[in-house]
Amino acid sequence: MNTTKTISSALISVFDKQGLEPIVRKLHQQSVTIYSTGGTETFIKGLGIPVIAIEEVTSYPSILGGRVKTLHPKIFGGILNRQDNELDVQQMEAFDIPQIDLVIVDLYPFEKTVASGASEQDIIEKIDIGGISLIRAAAKNFKDTVIVASVEDYSLFLETITKNNGATTLEERKMFATKAFHVSSHYDTAIFNYFNTDATYFKQSVSGGQVLRYGENPHQKGFFFGEFDKMFTKLHGKELSYNNLLDVDAAVNLMQEFKNDAPTFAILKHNNACGLATRPTVKEAYLHALAGDPTSAFGGVLIANATIDKAAAEEINKLFCEVVIAPGYDADAIDILQEKKNRILLVQHDVELPQQQVRTCLNGLLVQDKDSITDNKAMLQTVTVTEPTAQEVDDMIFASKICKHTKSNTIVFAKNGQLLASGTGQTSRVDALRQAVEKARSFNFDLNGAVMASDAFFPFPDCVELAKHAGITAVIQPGGSIKDELSINYCNENNVAMVFTGTRHFKH
Amino acid sequence: MNTTKTISSALISVFDKQGLEPIVRKLHQQSVTIYSTGGTETFIKGLGIPVIAIEEVTSYPSILGGRVKTLHPKIFGGILNRQDNELDVQQMEAFDIPQIDLVIVDLYPFEKTVASGASEQDIIEKIDIGGISLIRAAAKNFKDTVIVASVEDYSLFLETITKNNGATTLEERKMFATKAFHVSSHYDTAIFNYFNTDATYFKQSVSGGQVLRYGENPHQKGFFFGEFDKMFTKLHGKELSYNNLLDVDAAVNLMQEFKNDAPTFAILKHNNACGLATRPTVKEAYLHALAGDPTSAFGGVLIANATIDKAAAEEINKLFCEVVIAPGYDADAIDILQEKKNRILLVQHDVELPQQQVRTCLNGLLVQDKDSITDNKAMLQTVTVTEPTAQEVDDMIFASKICKHTKSNTIVFAKNGQLLASGTGQTSRVDALRQAVEKARSFNFDLNGAVMASDAFFPFPDCVELAKHAGITAVIQPGGSIKDELSINYCNENNVAMVFTGTRHFKH
Repeated sequence: MNTTKTISSALISVFDKQGLEPIVRKLHQQSVTIYSTGGTETFIKGLGIPVIAIEEVTSYPSILGGRVKTLHPKIFGGILNRQDNELDVQQMEAFDIPQIDLVIVDLYPFEKTVASGASEQDIIEKIDIGGISLIRAAAKNFKDTVIVASVEDYSLFLETITKNNGATTLEERKMFATKAFHVSSHYDTAIFNYFNTDATYFKQSVSGGQVLRYGENPHQKGFFFGEFDKMFTKLHGKELSYNNLLDVDAAVNLMQEFKNDAPTFAILKHNNACGLATRPTVKEAYLHALAGDPTSAFGGVLIANATIDKAAAEEINKLFCEVVIAPGYDADAIDILQEKKNRILLVQHDVELPQQQVRTCLNGLLVQDKDSITDNKAMLQTVTVTEPTAQEVDDMIFASKICKHTKSNTIVFAKNGQLLASGTGQTSRVDALRQAVEKARSFNFDLNGAVMASDAFFPFPDCVELAKHAGITAVIQPGGSIKDELSINYCNENNVAMVFTGTRHFKH
Repeated sequence: MNTTKTISSALISVFDKQGLEPIVRKLHQQSVTIYSTGGTETFIKGLGIPVIAIEEVTSYPSILGGRVKTLHPKIFGGILNRQDNELDVQQMEAFDIPQIDLVIVDLYPFEKTVASGASEQDIIEKIDIGGISLIRAAAKNFKDTVIVASVEDYSLFLETITKNNGATTLEERKMFATKAFHVSSHYDTAIFNYFNTDATYFKQSVSGGQVLRYGENPHQKGFFFGEFDKMFTKLHGKELSYNNLLDVDAAVNLMQEFKNDAPTFAILKHNNACGLATRPTVKEAYLHALAGDPTSAFGGVLIANATIDKAAAEEINKLFCEVVIAPGYDADAIDILQEKKNRILLVQHDVELPQQQVRTCLNGLLVQDKDSITDNKAMLQTVTVTEPTAQEVDDMIFASKICKHTKSNTIVFAKNGQLLASGTGQTSRVDALRQAVEKARSFNFDLNGAVMASDAFFPFPDCVELAKHAGITAVIQPGGSIKDELSINYCNENNVAMVFTGTRHFKH
């Protein structure tokens, strides 16, 4: 069975005419009969190419303000008939239905209309009925019919018919049909998401995913679906990997907390901060972030909340790091940072991130609102006799911001706007605390006068006891344990200040 | 403006007639003119209720084997006309178009047809064209028209018109229209996903999401979209939380690795195993898992690969734990485990999990294949002079399975089928190792003769040095560092066996 079919008739009805002309000329050259309607018909006529109005075929005018144009059995019969079905062929003749081999449609851009802030009435008026019906009918009948369902497919289609002398193979028609169902499903997903307010529905339709080198590990395929270029300008370096993207995401969300603070620098590894500091200059902030854990910093993702200048760049350049992110760079800083061939330099733009988070879980998905609460001074409730000092309050807020973006269970130690150590991803809170103490010691930090943040309450008083012994003088935590009183009593007896925020910050 | 509209005419064309009868009777009682076609027409006639065939309205027969039935301007004009538009009203009269106030459609179940293993040709034949067009037209015109787009909405519609004496409010019509675009987008998403083989597209359409108490934290809304009941039978306990679901997911994926092994028990906290052991009985496996970290086990998620008997249940009952998962329970074990009111008991069924993982990243999504490689004996390449013993090989495979399911960076120590300690979620590998050593010591484990697994290669020889000093005699790791030789040399000089797997297992 010969499944390559030559196009001899076409129905064309498009919104976007960019790139249509060479297709129409090619079709005309191949003696294809062209049917059309409205603006597309005028466009084709304007090219001096013969075109038959849909209304001539249906003997029915466009009615109801154009709402009903192509929805006619002669048109849909022409698209949907099965060329190898004898009865279909007989009926085509009996009802004088013209064969339609090719349908080219480009829909009015619904999403752009919504994005433009149009009124609901205008938006509803733009919901295409006839065009989608044509697309779906032609796609269903891909055995006989070619469907080009979007301006994005014009050039591929032109290449295809040019290569094949005006014909298409079954495989090509099936590929175009698949693209057509992408268009129709994407269009109705956008309409649904526009109208819907019920969170028990979840729909997403994205295309143009970037093929990554691999996923979390080399034996896993990985893809990124997002508008990276809207968020960043990449100045230099190799392609970002799956793990780079995860780290960049963690870095951007973490630094968002320090957006309005003095120069702040963070170093991340495996999605957690291993160093972070706020200082009068970016260089100092970097050096004090690095001091937090110079071992982990190797191969890390670096992020600053301020322009990276030459002085900072000279220091950063001494470190092997995978990615540097900043809102800007001085020209001489770029020169320095570009010295390492693979190092990725990103300029971060001020773009809002999605407020919902999705992840695979079991045989489905977990969807949640992002943790959008940042602990602030007004939230703090001192539960101990000892009041924290002004510096301790600042350090507690600082530590709690880091805590929120570190994987649970987590304990963070900070002093004078510097992360001293954290315990991350632990199965028990007391392990997280012990780990932070060990870590601070291994890098020779003095914990006397430092503060401690915990992402969740203390189930027992052992945490404040260990913290006190390590030198901690102020503690910030959500509170809410049935044994809070034991921790409070211990703090009161040992001159430790403790504040409750009422807000847990688990992150997994 | 009165936006409540009484239904006086209806077009009904449905696949599923379950629950249709009371609607038809109600409409008839309200003197509604009913148009229909095919099987639905026969069904309504069978109820003794008058019905007008679509073909009578269009004066056009159903042609091309039923592919073109309703696609006619009289039908679509009847649905799409704007009742407050004078020209529309005039054209309705001029073209003898009947007003259609209500459209009820239920589509042929495309997804079920695909799931049934039907041929591609059969599946294509089931792609509905006319029904979707009717649904979309009526939904667009919700200002004037009611659309019931699925059997799932029959009862809600019946309630609505019963309550309103055959009328609908604008708000109700908009709600039904939104449901209609859910149906159309879901349908075409399923068709697209059936045809598509290009991983740069990602589409998901799910509904019926379960509203969770909250997300990761009480101030975040959370939803689960999945078929929980397909995977588990819940015997007892409170509703699962967002964090429970995440832990259950981690537990199930971890235990999958031990599916064919002797009785194995694991205890998880914050998605990581804090205890895991393989033993001749479930009770012993539980006790040796618990011994791994009795502190973390408090409030944990427990999972077994074998039926939980009375002996095991009696031990488990002593622990405060949130969830217990097993393929089965003896009746007397259930009695015991149900003693705690809130404890969740799940029977796990043998269901395949999705092979792709999705998660929010930046302004988009990361999608990857699941890590589907389990390290096995055939993969091991001994790179040291010292060969591992048979027991060490078994323990290395055992440790590497746990390592794969523990958050990176991770180091796992194991001996005789028991997890002794792990370092989890660390920003440096050497920190993970130090943490595992500290943890093993704190629970009085003897690391002499234990094995070490690492989820990624060692960048420096410090890890094998520290491991050797702790008592480790065999090491399993992917290999691939430019400094592998240094680690190998150290092992050779110190009688430590080391094997490479070639497979990294990062997990974040």
